[in-house]
Amino acid sequence: MNHIDNVNFDVLNKGALLFVISGPSGVGKDSVVKELKNRPGKFHFVITANTRAPRPEEVEGVDYFFVSKEHFEAMIKGDELVEWAHVYGDYKGVPKAQIEGALASGKDVLMRLDVQGAKKIKSLYPFAILIFLLPTDEEEWQRRLLARAKEQGTDLDMDIRVEKVKEELASLNVFDYAVVNADNQLEQTVEAILDIISAEHHRLSR
Amino acid sequence: MNHIDNVNFDVLNKGALLFVISGPSGVGKDSVVKELKNRPGKFHFVITANTRAPRPEEVEGVDYFFVSKEHFEAMIKGDELVEWAHVYGDYKGVPKAQIEGALASGKDVLMRLDVQGAKKIKSLYPFAILIFLLPTDEEEWQRRLLARAKEQGTDLDMDIRVEKVKEELASLNVFDYAVVNADNQLEQTVEAILDIISAEHHRLSR
Repeated sequence: MNHIDNVNFDVLNKGALLFVISGPSGVGKDSVVKELKNRPGKFHFVITANTRAPRPEEVEGVDYFFVSKEHFEAMIKGDELVEWAHVYGDYKGVPKAQIEGALASGKDVLMRLDVQGAKKIKSLYPFAILIFLLPTDEEEWQRRLLARAKEQGTDLDMDIRVEKVKEELASLNVFDYAVVNADNQLEQTVEAILDIISAEHHRLSR
Repeated sequence: MNHIDNVNFDVLNKGALLFVISGPSGVGKDSVVKELKNRPGKFHFVITANTRAPRPEEVEGVDYFFVSKEHFEAMIKGDELVEWAHVYGDYKGVPKAQIEGALASGKDVLMRLDVQGAKKIKSLYPFAILIFLLPTDEEEWQRRLLARAKEQGTDLDMDIRVEKVKEELASLNVFDYAVVNADNQLEQTVEAILDIISAEHHRLSR
């Protein structure tokens, strides 16, 4: 071994990465993120603050921080949110401290955001890797929205949803990846996302 | 279902992709490609033509097409090769028909090429995805080169190899990914490559 001459093979960035799971309402973001949380891994999940009422299965501080509208408006005024949105009458947003603390921890950060939120994150953190979840087709997507509205006893204006999803698809160019989250194929969706995360750690340039 | 309004969720390119496994001499390209061939998959492997003598374990038409120098020079004259190189006194190159036939088949194409060859492929097929295999460090890499030279009873000029690998690392910017192929971690190398292949099928833009 008398030829060691300092060839540097250490070319990969070993740092933590920021991933955003996004996609239209009804595509199954919540189920996908829940499943990712069950996987052995080294992710830090960013918890979103939300003013809507928790759904029966949702847990405070795990699925969301559920806060009052007054509390949320105080956070807006105090500039404590990286991004926030007023969606279907409720506020939803990501506390700055959540992301910044997570990135500093050295762990990969995973966020679930709506399409508007994902775009804002990309503009603030251009190195963020955005994954767009898709339904198999329009029929599957509408069926899911209708089923959820029925389950929750809420109204659904499909025309508004269709307009919104068309707008969201027009933002696809901001996203890095798309994954189809088909009915009864949650496992495959999660595997595809884990593959993307692994691959991004081997990318040479962003 | 009276709201179906032709929202097009079909945004991913379903076509076959072209992957190139490359990296310095001694990094283990052959072992990695051999292992990938053992995986259930839907790859088409491009077989390289080579004028050197087969190594004991190598099989004609599987590992390489082993051809005479005269035959190879005739292919050069006939413009039958996508790329070729004169490496350590032997010719090595990829017959055009191999790649073009493979791409037309609709299957992902996997090629093993040296760094010079990988760069040529990228200039001909800019959509090709180049993966650079790395050793853990210089010591591991030199140990492997020495072991192989000893096994084959061939001479090894380490100074020439070091110069060459430095040149190759300077071409890293042409590559899309890098994967460390560490001693006794072949399984992990192969998994990382399969993750990259999966992720690339979910990419929205190249």
